[in-house]
Amino acid sequence: MKSDSVAMVTPPSKSHNQETQETVCIFGTGDFGRSLGLRLLQSGYNVVYGSRDPKNSLLLPKGSKVMSHADAAHEAQVIFVAVQREHYGFLSSMASDLTEKVLVDISNNLKSGTYRESNAEYLSTLVPGATVVKAFNTISAWALQSGGLDANRQVLVCGDRADAKQLVVDIAQGLGFTVLDKGSLRAAAELEDLPLQLFPLWRLPLWIAMGLTALIFFYALTRIVIYERVTNGKDIAFRIMISLANKAFPTVALVMLALCYLPGALAGFLQLYNGTKYRRFPDWLDRWMLCRKQLGLIALAFAFLHVIYTLVIPIRYYVRYRINVYTISLIKNNVSYDFDNTAAWRHDSYYSMGILGFGLFVLLGITSLPSVSNSLNWREFRFVQSKLGYITLLLCTLHTFLYGWDKFLKPSSYKWGMPPVYMLSLVVPCVVLILKLILITPCMDHKVTRIRQGWERQNKTLAKTSQPLMA
Amino acid sequence: MKSDSVAMVTPPSKSHNQETQETVCIFGTGDFGRSLGLRLLQSGYNVVYGSRDPKNSLLLPKGSKVMSHADAAHEAQVIFVAVQREHYGFLSSMASDLTEKVLVDISNNLKSGTYRESNAEYLSTLVPGATVVKAFNTISAWALQSGGLDANRQVLVCGDRADAKQLVVDIAQGLGFTVLDKGSLRAAAELEDLPLQLFPLWRLPLWIAMGLTALIFFYALTRIVIYERVTNGKDIAFRIMISLANKAFPTVALVMLALCYLPGALAGFLQLYNGTKYRRFPDWLDRWMLCRKQLGLIALAFAFLHVIYTLVIPIRYYVRYRINVYTISLIKNNVSYDFDNTAAWRHDSYYSMGILGFGLFVLLGITSLPSVSNSLNWREFRFVQSKLGYITLLLCTLHTFLYGWDKFLKPSSYKWGMPPVYMLSLVVPCVVLILKLILITPCMDHKVTRIRQGWERQNKTLAKTSQPLMA
Amino acid sequence: MKSDSVAMVTPPSKSHNQETQETVCIFGTGDFGRSLGLRLLQSGYNVVYGSRDPKNSLLLPKGSKVMSHADAAHEAQVIFVAVQREHYGFLSSMASDLTEKVLVDISNNLKSGTYRESNAEYLSTLVPGATVVKAFNTISAWALQSGGLDANRQVLVCGDRADAKQLVVDIAQGLGFTVLDKGSLRAAAELEDLPLQLFPLWRLPLWIAMGLTALIFFYALTRIVIYERVTNGKDIAFRIMISLANKAFPTVALVMLALCYLPGALAGFLQLYNGTKYRRFPDWLDRWMLCRKQLGLIALAFAFLHVIYTLVIPIRYYVRYRINVYTISLIKNNVSYDFDNTAAWRHDSYYSMGILGFGLFVLLGITSLPSVSNSLNWREFRFVQSKLGYITLLLCTLHTFLYGWDKFLKPSSYKWGMPPVYMLSLVVPCVVLILKLILITPCMDHKVTRIRQGWERQNKTLAKTSQPLMA
Repeated sequence: MKSDSVAMVTPPSKSHNQETQETVCIFGTGDFGRSLGLRLLQSGYNVVYGSRDPKNSLLLPKGSKVMSHADAAHEAQVIFVAVQREHYGFLSSMASDLTEKVLVDISNNLKSGTYRESNAEYLSTLVPGATVVKAFNTISAWALQSGGLDANRQVLVCGDRADAKQLVVDIAQGLGFTVLDKGSLRAAAELEDLPLQLFPLWRLPLWIAMGLTALIFFYALTRIVIYERVTNGKDIAFRIMISLANKAFPTVALVMLALCYLPGALAGFLQLYNGTKYRRFPDWLDRWMLCRKQLGLIALAFAFLHVIYTLVIPIRYYVRYRINVYTISLIKNNVSYDFDNTAAWRHDSYYSMGILGFGLFVLLGITSLPSVSNSLNWREFRFVQSKLGYITLLLCTLHTFLYGWDKFLKPSSYKWGMPPVYMLSLVVPCVVLILKLILITPCMDHKVTRIRQGWERQNKTLAKTSQPLMA
Repeated sequence: MKSDSVAMVTPPSKSHNQETQETVCIFGTGDFGRSLGLRLLQSGYNVVYGSRDPKNSLLLPKGSKVMSHADAAHEAQVIFVAVQREHYGFLSSMASDLTEKVLVDISNNLKSGTYRESNAEYLSTLVPGATVVKAFNTISAWALQSGGLDANRQVLVCGDRADAKQLVVDIAQGLGFTVLDKGSLRAAAELEDLPLQLFPLWRLPLWIAMGLTALIFFYALTRIVIYERVTNGKDIAFRIMISLANKAFPTVALVMLALCYLPGALAGFLQLYNGTKYRRFPDWLDRWMLCRKQLGLIALAFAFLHVIYTLVIPIRYYVRYRINVYTISLIKNNVSYDFDNTAAWRHDSYYSMGILGFGLFVLLGITSLPSVSNSLNWREFRFVQSKLGYITLLLCTLHTFLYGWDKFLKPSSYKWGMPPVYMLSLVVPCVVLILKLILITPCMDHKVTRIRQGWERQNKTLAKTSQPLMA
Repeated sequence: MKSDSVAMVTPPSKSHNQETQETVCIFGTGDFGRSLGLRLLQSGYNVVYGSRDPKNSLLLPKGSKVMSHADAAHEAQVIFVAVQREHYGFLSSMASDLTEKVLVDISNNLKSGTYRESNAEYLSTLVPGATVVKAFNTISAWALQSGGLDANRQVLVCGDRADAKQLVVDIAQGLGFTVLDKGSLRAAAELEDLPLQLFPLWRLPLWIAMGLTALIFFYALTRIVIYERVTNGKDIAFRIMISLANKAFPTVALVMLALCYLPGALAGFLQLYNGTKYRRFPDWLDRWMLCRKQLGLIALAFAFLHVIYTLVIPIRYYVRYRINVYTISLIKNNVSYDFDNTAAWRHDSYYSMGILGFGLFVLLGITSLPSVSNSLNWREFRFVQSKLGYITLLLCTLHTFLYGWDKFLKPSSYKWGMPPVYMLSLVVPCVVLILKLILITPCMDHKVTRIRQGWERQNKTLAKTSQPLMA
């Protein structure tokens, strides 16, 4: 990738031919150094490796040269430092060779918080004469090798000098990556933490999901298995595997779907109360809003398990046994067997609600795939995630209500005073639906819409209202 | 993002250091202005806000400055106008401060067609001395805040002057966005309509799906529920919830899958008739071809519902009742119960066809996800969407045929002269399959292939055949 | 897209206005030429077509000009040659008009290996005075028309002169594409092969899947259907459709999931044996490692079919018949029907394992979607694909063990000495799990981790250990 772009509109002249292949230097012949070199060669760069023992550096990509660190440094303007931080020492001893060079720090640490300052800033203090740019540390050797087709294609760059950064940006773009400038070298610490993260946004939702599952599981265990054991002396512990799981999963799914829409409703009320949307939400609400997508997707996973656990019912040994026993008892006792029209309606309705709810839920999940949500505009995304989301919640709540039907009226449902699981699962969804219902009444809706369009209640400064926001 | 790229190959010199941080001005301190400022600061730009009341502008990102509009305008070459169109007035009054500046219009309207000319063109007439570039209006404040990881990352730009556009392009790329140049400022109206669209390509297919569903639902309602009521006086209205839905959904799925492949077959015949592929298709066919993907995906959604509605059958109260009653009647009447080998074959075959067809259908759906279809080359995409698509259609059609079996021969199937729903669903798929069968006969296939490779029948101009197309 | 970027920070001056619209020339008025021209016009370029018969060139995009090849060539610096290779002849005859021009070869062949040298290199020898750049051949006319929203957005470029390449890169970026530089014109042959590929990485895994399916199907056919026919003279051939399919699919799924993790385990042992990770793996292992993703996704497809084939069981005619016959026999013979607690545990457990395994498997599949895996960092990707992957394999293996239970002890299971299918399916998974179990014992794990961090056994050169790799 040549950077002399001024002359581009004129016919290619000889003076440019000399620069056809820019040379890039790489210190370090490990995995990353080798993969980077190979990719640079493929993209038309010359590659020079700096090594302590140039004669014994094996497996380097064909076409590259190996020489001592100092010699290699003289060959190129940009030097990738593919060496671990613990070995940076030798760089300060050759500082004179690195004056005016651009050092690209690509290093990561094995653990967060090992050092006080970031690797890149440390490098910068070691070789003050050079300009340090942090880049490529979020790209794996594998992503470099596989041509970036499947792996992350965005290179994050930071550094204190724009011209040095630009050199690195040109190389990254020449290798087919997109670039995101993260500002000055102070951002290096943040960049070095990125590859060490393990689903930071998923942690809280996953803990909530696991906690809820355990809670409901033990609740149902007590209410069903232990109760049966104590009261009737019967061992129905085998029901743990499917019956209890199929009580815990739908409950967690419904509650988490509701938790996914609760913060939005709360935010609406808070904005109404504040009379403006320009006041910050409390921190806990902000954090909650940020993990709504994760809450929703975990809820979908649980709903998916619930669906299969339900569909598997008729092939269970226990269920077949029960049906057979029932049929035999009907015949032996010669009782008449009447069709209960209400039961037919109720069953079919709650299956139908559940299926439609699950179908919409899957649709919500699909639209939250990065490539799909990227192809939607803001209005479409909001329509799907908000309107369709509430319909999903409504259908799933109705599904649960119809499942329960009039059981809540029967005292036998309250074993040891504990209400059935499905009742507990309805609390949060009902709260969310009622809050939403209030928010969409015409008078409330009008106020919220005005606030979201930048309107503020009169006790605010007038100046602000003259600077409206973009929708 | 510095743009002096000529000197890049030489060591960073002092003259560049002065320009390390370009300054960008933002008029307006609303949501979008604030998010944009924050992102610019993170990417190493200086940010200056222009405000009517600089002293009362709260919540602005740390590191930015606020001053009067005129002062702010003097600080930067590029000014983002994050103000709603109704407030553009003040800009014309400060036209002298804006001479030679690049004004970036990022505005959207709440409704399409509110104004005669686009916001950007209006701005251009208000401040003739400045150059207006339309950009960023398809990017939400949220996408700016979230670092563009999850949200749409393409900035659409249009404007009359290439150099002004380039300045905006550089900023957009510096923020990590990709840029698509949409031409002159006349394109601004189109760009301003984009964020207002709500699934434009999905409308027609959705209407078709809803229309078909309603039609078939009421047809089945008449044929099954009302007929039963009138003829036998029995109320089987509960069957609406699952039985009828499970007749409507598969029918709509099959018909829409067929509708997805019908236009391609028609186009083949049209090309054969025209003897060239260089004649335009009629408009209705063009529009139909453009929404094939949507037709197919809606068909998949209905097929998905059909699958779950079918799998839920054995846990329905009504079905369990019927089976019990049947078993009891067998015993009470002591009739012998023989195994029907043909029925076993037929049932298992149509389930098997259905499952395989659905499996392929899901595969088609997955390959039409943007990120997956992007990783396929043209030949692979065509193989999946055309070859596998027709096999899917064939399997689903066979599934329906085997489901019906010999029912079409029995007069009892034609209640009130109305054929069963499955028969109606077979009409369109059979037409498509027959058309395709004709097109792939060797002689037809040869002709179509030649035409698609650019060959034209002799009565066309010779000149054209000397300019073949790329496959 | 102008390239004079030096002056960009200064106010737009008149000298730039003249160049506002760069002119691009296209030879050829076929599909690709027309689509490219339209896209160029939309992005603010002037477009001039070169045609043999300018007066009869129809259907060209509005706003473009058509003239003779020579006249058109004089209008622009960059000429797209949208003509098939067989018609390149005329270009050598007009070589003088093309001196110093940049010719962009966008051609593809219908078959791989038709010509000795690539089209681009052939063009280069025909017009030695011009500079040939290979580009855009992986982009379809359709992708150009649809604005690149849905289709592949990466343009691959190669060529011998960096300045000429840069001109083409600028145009590609101006049209909204990202660019990957593939080096010198020698890479053209590789680029021309890309659009002809048909799932190269999927071939081997698909053959394995089909071979395994056929093998197990015929094995089960012999063991079940033919055995029954020969021994008892009963025709149960109808079981082919579902029962046999539902034996073949889960077996293939489980074996292929295990095959997906076997190479990783083998590689671990090989590294332990070599005492270094810097020795190349044998070729077969390398190739195996490269198609792990494909093996896993095909396994998921088979698991998906297995799930539906299983859920469909209770609505099968055969199954309902068997249950009815069993119930009737119970009543007629008046036998007591006792609940088998162990059977209940076993059944529910193996369903539960299977469902959880399938749930995790679907999760693995989702994270291997390009857009999802791109949003994960290396550590997250490894966590999902390795840790969760092994848990999936473990659950699915347990599912199969519990399915079999104590059948392997009963001689009646070995019809004609052939063990049941489920036993065969357990061989490979057990091998993989045992290998993994060995690798994660603390002492082995410690060694492997050290090797993967660059450590080498002492008999290697010391020099190497001083050049550690990046994680």
